[in-house]
Amino acid sequence: MSGILPSYIQGAWWTPADDAGATDVRDASTGEVVARVSTAGLDLGAALEYARTVGQASIGALTFHERAVLLKKLALALTERKDELYALSARTGATKADSWVDIDGGIGVLFSYSGKARREMPNTRVFVDGPVEPLSKDGSFLGRHIYTRLPGVAVQVNAFNFPVWGSLEKFAPAFLAGMPTLVKPATPTGYLAEAFVRILVDSGLLPDGALQLVSGSVPGLFDHLRLGDIVGFTGSATTAEMLRAHDSVQTGGVRFTSETDSINASVLGPDAVAGTPEFEAYVRQLVTEMTSKAGQKCTAIRRALVPAASVDAVIEAVRARIAERVVVGDPRADGVTMGPLASTAQRDDVLAQVARLEAAGGEVVIGSTGTPSVTRADGSVGESPDGAFVTPLMLRFADAAADAVHQLEAFGPVASVLAYDTVAEAADLVARGGGSLVTSIATHDPEVALELMSRISAFNGRVLLLDRDDARSSTGHGSPLPNLVHGGPGRAGGGEELGGIRAVLHHMQRTAVQGSPEMLTALTGVWHAGAAANSAGRHPFRKSLAELRIGDQIVSASREVTLADIETFAHFTGDTFYAHMDEEAAAANPFFPGRVAHGYLLVSWAAGLFVDPEPGPVLANYGLENLRFLTPVSPGDEIRVELTAKQITPRETDEYGEVRWDAVIRNQKDEVVAQYDVLTLVAKQLAAA
Amino acid sequence: MSGILPSYIQGAWWTPADDAGATDVRDASTGEVVARVSTAGLDLGAALEYARTVGQASIGALTFHERAVLLKKLALALTERKDELYALSARTGATKADSWVDIDGGIGVLFSYSGKARREMPNTRVFVDGPVEPLSKDGSFLGRHIYTRLPGVAVQVNAFNFPVWGSLEKFAPAFLAGMPTLVKPATPTGYLAEAFVRILVDSGLLPDGALQLVSGSVPGLFDHLRLGDIVGFTGSATTAEMLRAHDSVQTGGVRFTSETDSINASVLGPDAVAGTPEFEAYVRQLVTEMTSKAGQKCTAIRRALVPAASVDAVIEAVRARIAERVVVGDPRADGVTMGPLASTAQRDDVLAQVARLEAAGGEVVIGSTGTPSVTRADGSVGESPDGAFVTPLMLRFADAAADAVHQLEAFGPVASVLAYDTVAEAADLVARGGGSLVTSIATHDPEVALELMSRISAFNGRVLLLDRDDARSSTGHGSPLPNLVHGGPGRAGGGEELGGIRAVLHHMQRTAVQGSPEMLTALTGVWHAGAAANSAGRHPFRKSLAELRIGDQIVSASREVTLADIETFAHFTGDTFYAHMDEEAAAANPFFPGRVAHGYLLVSWAAGLFVDPEPGPVLANYGLENLRFLTPVSPGDEIRVELTAKQITPRETDEYGEVRWDAVIRNQKDEVVAQYDVLTLVAKQLAAA
Repeated sequence: MSGILPSYIQGAWWTPADDAGATDVRDASTGEVVARVSTAGLDLGAALEYARTVGQASIGALTFHERAVLLKKLALALTERKDELYALSARTGATKADSWVDIDGGIGVLFSYSGKARREMPNTRVFVDGPVEPLSKDGSFLGRHIYTRLPGVAVQVNAFNFPVWGSLEKFAPAFLAGMPTLVKPATPTGYLAEAFVRILVDSGLLPDGALQLVSGSVPGLFDHLRLGDIVGFTGSATTAEMLRAHDSVQTGGVRFTSETDSINASVLGPDAVAGTPEFEAYVRQLVTEMTSKAGQKCTAIRRALVPAASVDAVIEAVRARIAERVVVGDPRADGVTMGPLASTAQRDDVLAQVARLEAAGGEVVIGSTGTPSVTRADGSVGESPDGAFVTPLMLRFADAAADAVHQLEAFGPVASVLAYDTVAEAADLVARGGGSLVTSIATHDPEVALELMSRISAFNGRVLLLDRDDARSSTGHGSPLPNLVHGGPGRAGGGEELGGIRAVLHHMQRTAVQGSPEMLTALTGVWHAGAAANSAGRHPFRKSLAELRIGDQIVSASREVTLADIETFAHFTGDTFYAHMDEEAAAANPFFPGRVAHGYLLVSWAAGLFVDPEPGPVLANYGLENLRFLTPVSPGDEIRVELTAKQITPRETDEYGEVRWDAVIRNQKDEVVAQYDVLTLVAKQLAAA
Repeated sequence: MSGILPSYIQGAWWTPADDAGATDVRDASTGEVVARVSTAGLDLGAALEYARTVGQASIGALTFHERAVLLKKLALALTERKDELYALSARTGATKADSWVDIDGGIGVLFSYSGKARREMPNTRVFVDGPVEPLSKDGSFLGRHIYTRLPGVAVQVNAFNFPVWGSLEKFAPAFLAGMPTLVKPATPTGYLAEAFVRILVDSGLLPDGALQLVSGSVPGLFDHLRLGDIVGFTGSATTAEMLRAHDSVQTGGVRFTSETDSINASVLGPDAVAGTPEFEAYVRQLVTEMTSKAGQKCTAIRRALVPAASVDAVIEAVRARIAERVVVGDPRADGVTMGPLASTAQRDDVLAQVARLEAAGGEVVIGSTGTPSVTRADGSVGESPDGAFVTPLMLRFADAAADAVHQLEAFGPVASVLAYDTVAEAADLVARGGGSLVTSIATHDPEVALELMSRISAFNGRVLLLDRDDARSSTGHGSPLPNLVHGGPGRAGGGEELGGIRAVLHHMQRTAVQGSPEMLTALTGVWHAGAAANSAGRHPFRKSLAELRIGDQIVSASREVTLADIETFAHFTGDTFYAHMDEEAAAANPFFPGRVAHGYLLVSWAAGLFVDPEPGPVLANYGLENLRFLTPVSPGDEIRVELTAKQITPRETDEYGEVRWDAVIRNQKDEVVAQYDVLTLVAKQLAAA
């Protein structure tokens, strides 16, 4: 044993042969050494190739839903052992609340993606994007867009602030897409990432090569990357810039997505004066963002944009709330609500940035840059110079246009207040950040929201509209959510993460496919009109999922619609719309030749025509999609329906699955009267007789 | 007059003060000077700023549909004067068929986008992406993704081969998004781009600043770009690489998308032996791609991957077809089917690349690199050394793994034949291209198609599956279509163009928005459940589009569903599914408490409950979307329906528009029984009494 934090490479735990040159990693509050880190001698190229071969093969054997079920099991494995993670998390400077965001938040991403994938993706390996594009008049040549996974490895380079969440929010979509991950956590908190990876490995659930961990630096990483690989980077804009410039990205076709801390703004609307619920919510959120995770969040508020008349009131309210709520200290001590920064190096960086902001005109109006008095682990209070402590700091800029406040970030509990006069000016100030992850707006005036949004949307990956209606339920300015896009233009890195299935697709290639209905059916697993259909043999409603095949079809008998039928239906349903009841008025309507059958009559009859009524594997009709009425049906017309199994989605964790049927109603002239998809639940097996 | 090809800048035609340093542009067949080009003294920064201010304001005043209508009018203006364009096109070396692809193809893109935008986009300025994401249990905090246009200018740098199509396929989506365009055509064929821009300007239809043209070079262009601008580049991989490396892209947040010529492959399946329809279709397509536009297409086939046993047969068939069909010469001469390259410089490039391919092991098996004998404009036949003529050339590589054939492109009528043994080997060879715009596969065996697709999809922006079923209707390997994505990974540039509305969205920023239902309704123009609804006053079916407002609502009376109703409906429709008819069998079903009402009964009754039957502005129910049955309805239950105006889309060119209604059916316990969207057509104005 070299005493070095292990990496997990090629299916085994790995440490260097000796610890020469290893880096010490220290407890954020006490300065004690927690771990030592080195990757000397690690064969990174072999690790990547292992992912591309073994990892791709093992994840590729699974469908989207099988991967989703595994994500849930992994989440449960982490949940069971999360106390181990909390203990380590405290060493990084995280309070209990901070740890909850990182650890439970990370686990939550797995749960969320597991559910979303099973609801929103097919149970196959190809994701179909958008509708069929007809490319020929006779229907023999169609276009369709599909997503297939990238054939390489997803390299995830993470920041120090959220060692669990930051990894899992990238791992989950990569895994769902079918890509193996190689994760490189930041060194200062890498021991917490090692701990969660160990839990996942111990669970025995991970497919071979699905996840590798490099605990330490990755020299020459980009030299090993090639077309088909993707890098997801979170960290500073400067590092992102350096990595993006590598040849493998510039000309080698390696996808590079980055999410960098940005100079996010929070705007207090002109209507949200002191005393309004929006003012209160604004101040509460601002203090939360300054102090949660000691302000070490890429989404934290750095610029508070406030109407000139409200600046003093905001500063006073923030000061009062900090005094009342914020206790800085070792997170293991009772009552502490804000921990230290992750390392003393980080603390020194933050103080240096604050000095630059002061030099550029910022005046510290709350807090101090001196060594703070803090609560130590044992409950005593005093200075703790080996810990990375900083107090919450608020600066005020007399000149809101000063470059520094829009460009320099102090990555700690630091925000600056800027005054604005008009909403247009506030919008310009938001944009001065050069692209942000998030902006929040506290206003109850839709006009203010609309004017700001029309000018700032394009500069933001996310915008939160805070008012009295959602102040209590808001998830907060600083919280990326699995179902919403995280990332932003320009300074924020220009990438997108999360956003539900969108992030899965970022790990896949979209390809336009042109071909015959038969070939597109074979390729997508979705029946395309014009492909072979099978109406011989048993009624498809008599087939379980195990027996049913795409293209199984029932072509119904014809049934004549009489005027009496229309009247019966009208009186039974109460739908006596004139187009069904009044010949003259109906004929005056631009779309009808005279009285016509109700659309709902047609789909109701169609069900009567295609249904097989006896108990069997078809359990329920749970919905209907994309219904269009295309040709009116007049008294005397006949209708018939063709119902074809279009898509079959067995559920992984139920004894049934979804079957989508293509329904086409035609009249006696073969014109399409209506078309739609019928959604049913069908048993996997026939019930025992 | 300086005799220089004009640029169109800041709303006026511009030429330099003098013609010092101007470049001569020559007729491709004869070498005559067609135009002279210079941008000396052009204020590019001012042009870009004009777009960002005047252009953004004028296009921003229009909705998506208003822009779409303008696109159609622009297409009609070009159609009216397209003979002028044909005449100039011939000077670029294009045959009539080539010109049709460029000119009519370009006009077709405008028509296609005009229609798609009106069918698939709302008639507003904000595009909503994906469903509502509930973020709180009480429904007071929701998430939604919106797209808003980028606030800058779309700079389009185009290739010489398709001066009309290449411009219009970028202009159309940029314009729809709301972005002004500055187009920089390639110098050798810029006079044709100038001609179509002139027609558009003459039409008087272009909003101020919507389109500017730089006829000539753009030194320092990228120094003027900034966050909010986007560059769409088409051309060589080398130039793309150089441009992408600029600081404004690397760190300035300027979006850069490139579409570069790639080493595309066409695979003959093992089943497609000589004599099969697939073999014939393969050869026909290969010759077309070699000779159309004299092979100067970024999508042309460069690598013909053929089973070893079929190589000789393919070469012979290609040779025969070229001999039979291809006449090289001045496109103005009768009978000519393949023109010269665009310039003698281009010809010399191509021949140099062919020499490199020969040096790397390629053997020329069809055609010759010597000066060809061609048909001149006057019909005479002989050498024409001032014209940029090359014969179709096919090379054969004994070693299919030779690097050169996968990396070097001869951008002319040149393709290489490579033999493969297994389908897996063919897939590996396709991937050797390092990312392609398109690959085609000729096979009638779905297994072959599936195996190839599973391995090559991720390396291609488009794949065409060619077989006997679609050979006649296929639009061809080399033809990008407005509704399919054009672009590809890696060597192909890594970008996406076209693909319908996808390309519009590439000019917009996706932003996640969080807020109350009220705020999201105001922002998106789409009613969100939980926002204010107005059920006072007239029934909403009595309101024209001019009067109807988002949130207008009808809350119906309740109606009890009896067993007799269920039986009546079953016998009337024929839908006697056991869940409605047989208490015992229904109760055994996992989803039903016993006999339940038909879903179609519920939606039919709902219509009866919400309809206002007399003639009025509501003209028709044309469909229904996203219907889900959530709670079964048992005999004795009561249902009622809430119908709320959700989205209003007036048509620009009709006297009516679409109204989407939010429909929710609840039972007596307030449980949601079903929810769906009802789609109606509603008149803009009330009919005169």
